[in-house]
Amino acid sequence: MELNFDKGDGLLPAVIQEFGTNKVLMLGFMNAAAVQQTLETGYVTFFSRSRNKLWVKGESSGHLLKVREVRVDCDEDALVVVAEQLGPGTCHEGYHSCFYRRIEAGNLVIVEPRAFDPEKVYGNSSHSSFPAARPPGQARQE
Amino acid sequence: MELNFDKGDGLLPAVIQEFGTNKVLMLGFMNAAAVQQTLETGYVTFFSRSRNKLWVKGESSGHLLKVREVRVDCDEDALVVVAEQLGPGTCHEGYHSCFYRRIEAGNLVIVEPRAFDPEKVYGNSSHSSFPAARPPGQARQE
Repeated sequence: MELNFDKGDGLLPAVIQEFGTNKVLMLGFMNAAAVQQTLETGYVTFFSRSRNKLWVKGESSGHLLKVREVRVDCDEDALVVVAEQLGPGTCHEGYHSCFYRRIEAGNLVIVEPRAFDPEKVYGNSSHSSFPAARPPGQARQE
Repeated sequence: MELNFDKGDGLLPAVIQEFGTNKVLMLGFMNAAAVQQTLETGYVTFFSRSRNKLWVKGESSGHLLKVREVRVDCDEDALVVVAEQLGPGTCHEGYHSCFYRRIEAGNLVIVEPRAFDPEKVYGNSSHSSFPAARPPGQARQE
């Protein structure tokens, strides 16, 4: 098996799709080591572009993503990882999916309820520097 | 609405998810102009990294992707576009989805039947330079 990491400077986009519902939970990037670790451990591992290191999704929250299937696209430069979500939500903002907002007439509108309280889950860990979340139903106008 | 194009050198990954089935059909990249054109025309438009220009998906085949909803992730650096597929398949190899192969024990195994004959659809257009497809069920060992 050969994957093409060249187009993305050593990184592939990896779509995480929830087993059973087919919902897209998040999108992250993997380098070759992250792909290998994901396949070997059975838990989704990304390469964090901001922290410049491997990152096991859920290592802080316990909301790990357990791999059920890995799909590869025609150009071998993108992955879909079908996974079980071990926890109430994947998003650090407390939502089931990171894609909890929809574009409506140029605004971002929250269209899913919060699944958990990120303060309680992430507490004062490194995730506490994330921006404060807006309540469901509130549009963001920029 | 503000999207963050900085992390991807002016490009965002955009996951195309099929309306109704939630299948992931493909992943492409959009620059700001591609996002704007996608929203304004209602048809998925990417920025082609290999051809360095805007690319309306389906402009050759007629298999356009009609936008139903655009979701934005928490970091505003990835999109999920829910779309109707106007045609039998999205993949230039003749499959319904570009993610027609699964990793099994280090090999890529085709797990979906062909939906159309790419020779008949793309003929001698610019797409004819794509690599020849392998028949369904045949594993690729590399």
